[in-house]
Amino acid sequence: MATGTIELNRERMVAVAAEVFARHGYHGTGIAELAKAVGLGRGALYHYIESKEALLYAISRTQVDRMNAHAETTLRAGYAPEELLHEMARGLVRNIAEHRAEWAVFFSDYSALTGERRDHVIAARERYEGYWRQALDRGVAAGVLRATPELLVKGILGMLNYTYLWFEPDGALSPEELADSYLDVMLRGIRA
Amino acid sequence: MATGTIELNRERMVAVAAEVFARHGYHGTGIAELAKAVGLGRGALYHYIESKEALLYAISRTQVDRMNAHAETTLRAGYAPEELLHEMARGLVRNIAEHRAEWAVFFSDYSALTGERRDHVIAARERYEGYWRQALDRGVAAGVLRATPELLVKGILGMLNYTYLWFEPDGALSPEELADSYLDVMLRGIRA
Repeated sequence: MATGTIELNRERMVAVAAEVFARHGYHGTGIAELAKAVGLGRGALYHYIESKEALLYAISRTQVDRMNAHAETTLRAGYAPEELLHEMARGLVRNIAEHRAEWAVFFSDYSALTGERRDHVIAARERYEGYWRQALDRGVAAGVLRATPELLVKGILGMLNYTYLWFEPDGALSPEELADSYLDVMLRGIRA
Repeated sequence: MATGTIELNRERMVAVAAEVFARHGYHGTGIAELAKAVGLGRGALYHYIESKEALLYAISRTQVDRMNAHAETTLRAGYAPEELLHEMARGLVRNIAEHRAEWAVFFSDYSALTGERRDHVIAARERYEGYWRQALDRGVAAGVLRATPELLVKGILGMLNYTYLWFEPDGALSPEELADSYLDVMLRGIRA
């Protein structure tokens, strides 16, 4: 089998696993159930993934790594401080809206990861928070924003992350419009 | 056995069940495991609760009902609009800090509730959001706050609820101080 096919199948498998975990819980889902959901036998499933935890890791890592890549690109793009924060917020809410099952699994179950996998995901989350801190600091350095408590980043992320529980992508607002409306309030709150 | 003892045991059982569900997932926890955790046989456990779902319901409902009671008391207490919002936020973060396992189970698994139990919990959540809306509306009516988008309530709640994932009650800030620091930013953002 060509490597391309394996990768494609692996990606599909991660997406299907996220749906199954979101519905029946990570702890409540057996390998047999996953194999059935992706239409493979147990043996064939193990051909692609080594364990259930490897799937949870793939689900968690993919989203967090994606957000870090988005933040890195955005921080390099030369936006003015307020627009930078808007753009980071848009990227996050858009990603959550497109991957609600993955984010639900991440928030509910990433703590079930062990060893290096757990360390990697936690470090990647902290890196992402650091990018938000950087973006806020740029606004302070530019004299546009006032200095804010260290923990405000977690508050902003809470506001945006919480959308995984309720945001309907087909509703009246696009993910970007919702992000903008939250950031408008937030920026008014921290403007110098 | 006196009713008092049954109630006390039931309360302890709900707290222990929340810990077990938070650790192993609602779907991943069997009745046998719950019985072991509370130090009872399966039969004795069924003496107190009718099903695993009844425990999930008790965990979810207790916290949400408590927050509704807090909001009702606070709304009646005659606070000025901004202090009212601060007080509601303090109550929520304090409750989350004191019941992190319960809130983790609630956010991860309330969607596993079925029928009337599910309806009740969803209705109670909506009532709580409505109380926040009322509190904001009072500020607008008093000319203290500007009118804000309907969905801002979910943003504020996201900011506060998200603490269940990270807030350490033994850290540098008390739950009330954290709530105040978030509300300070938020109120600056929505002041008239």
